[in-house]
Amino acid sequence: VGSEGTLGVITAATLKLFPEPRSVATAWVAVAGVQQALTLLNLLRESSGDRVSSFELIPNVALALVREHIAGAKDPQVEPSDWYVLCEIASSAEENMDALLEAALGDSMDRKLVQDAAIAQSDAQRANFWKLRESVPESQRHVGASIKHDISVPASAMPEFVERGTALVASIAPEGMLVAYGHLGDGNLHFNLSKRPKFSDTAFMARREPLQRAVHDLVAQLGGSISAEHGIGRYKVGELERYAAPLELELMRGIKHTLDPNGIMNPGKVLRKV
Amino acid sequence: VGSEGTLGVITAATLKLFPEPRSVATAWVAVAGVQQALTLLNLLRESSGDRVSSFELIPNVALALVREHIAGAKDPQVEPSDWYVLCEIASSAEENMDALLEAALGDSMDRKLVQDAAIAQSDAQRANFWKLRESVPESQRHVGASIKHDISVPASAMPEFVERGTALVASIAPEGMLVAYGHLGDGNLHFNLSKRPKFSDTAFMARREPLQRAVHDLVAQLGGSISAEHGIGRYKVGELERYAAPLELELMRGIKHTLDPNGIMNPGKVLRKV
Repeated sequence: VGSEGTLGVITAATLKLFPEPRSVATAWVAVAGVQQALTLLNLLRESSGDRVSSFELIPNVALALVREHIAGAKDPQVEPSDWYVLCEIASSAEENMDALLEAALGDSMDRKLVQDAAIAQSDAQRANFWKLRESVPESQRHVGASIKHDISVPASAMPEFVERGTALVASIAPEGMLVAYGHLGDGNLHFNLSKRPKFSDTAFMARREPLQRAVHDLVAQLGGSISAEHGIGRYKVGELERYAAPLELELMRGIKHTLDPNGIMNPGKVLRKV
Repeated sequence: VGSEGTLGVITAATLKLFPEPRSVATAWVAVAGVQQALTLLNLLRESSGDRVSSFELIPNVALALVREHIAGAKDPQVEPSDWYVLCEIASSAEENMDALLEAALGDSMDRKLVQDAAIAQSDAQRANFWKLRESVPESQRHVGASIKHDISVPASAMPEFVERGTALVASIAPEGMLVAYGHLGDGNLHFNLSKRPKFSDTAFMARREPLQRAVHDLVAQLGGSISAEHGIGRYKVGELERYAAPLELELMRGIKHTLDPNGIMNPGKVLRKV
């Protein structure tokens, strides 16, 4: 997948099947911060028998955007907090996953990781929690211009990344508000900005290049990737050239040339020339 | 790992950690056949919440060899059967996994998949079950010469592979007895033979090449791999050349040449020449 069609074409696929989930529990959780969210993830993995199927970090600013701009998005009805987690545990067996999740969240409240939480009591409530999460990109489009970074760092470095990244936004791009959300378990964060209403698109977008440089430098420093789940494409070809070692690039070009000696497969993507 | 050091050297490794298992249940199970073992695996995955951590297929002939030749190997005390399964389910939470395994095995008995089973009642009993499994290769060495095939086929094709493979052994290498065991969940089988006592090593080993050809042809026909977990090395270089398409080999040589233009990395393995 990472080659984006530059190294070949898919002619067949074999699927490995897993048992269908029968018991699911879903919660919207107000957490004290990113470090606490990470600790909660580790506790939940342990207490659920490693059956956490989703663990999404969502800032309050994203929830507010979705509530304002997306029709039918209902409040999750937990106490306000700077950060939330949407988490789900699932089993292929008939089990009371709600009770398991409730016990884990109660324990996490005692440890001051969690401030408040709501466990979905119906499929409709579960669907609303997911709608809140999945509407974040659409809600950003309602506000106007965006600056996006699709990055990953080791999960343990995520609290430091968010703290230092937030400071970079404040100093380099004060015209933007940070809407950082993503898959905490993978260490994958959509470190996105939306323009604040009182600024022009031009003033905001002028910050894109210096901010991207600073954010990607921070990612590199923390041992992460500037392209977590959306590939290099055309947009990040220059960034790949900046952050990959010259030998890495040489080997990538060599492998590309071996598989595609005439350069006919998806030219211009990932590698500028071969 | 599959490149066997022909494409590079490992200079660093990053480990992903999982919660430590706290609750484990282990059983030695007499199954009616390979198809029934496969059905048991699917049922157990479902009823355990997909937490099957081991599922080893073991023929009675292997158990007999281990009991005869390995000091301290105790009988698992289940009814005799042509095939056994050593299975384990595990959880990072404090759970009664024994009860879960017992219920699943009881259900499987009602469905005539399982004839008898013993759940380990102590760590010593669990260790004995594993000793029985892990001593199979050593027990084979006590009997004399072996002919080995390290193959995989899709799990769903395993019953057909075992049935047709057993017939191939009977017709091509009657001097050998089949000791086929392995990781059923991966579709990985050690399709091994030990020489029967009344034949000479020479008579037995003369069957190696024609049998290997027939077994590998059967693997190819069923969409499997002639090298499941032990690599191509030097021993199977010729077999790889036989079963891989010419274009596949050309691309493998091209990639090898890109990464190792002077041919200094583990020469002679996997690919005969570059």
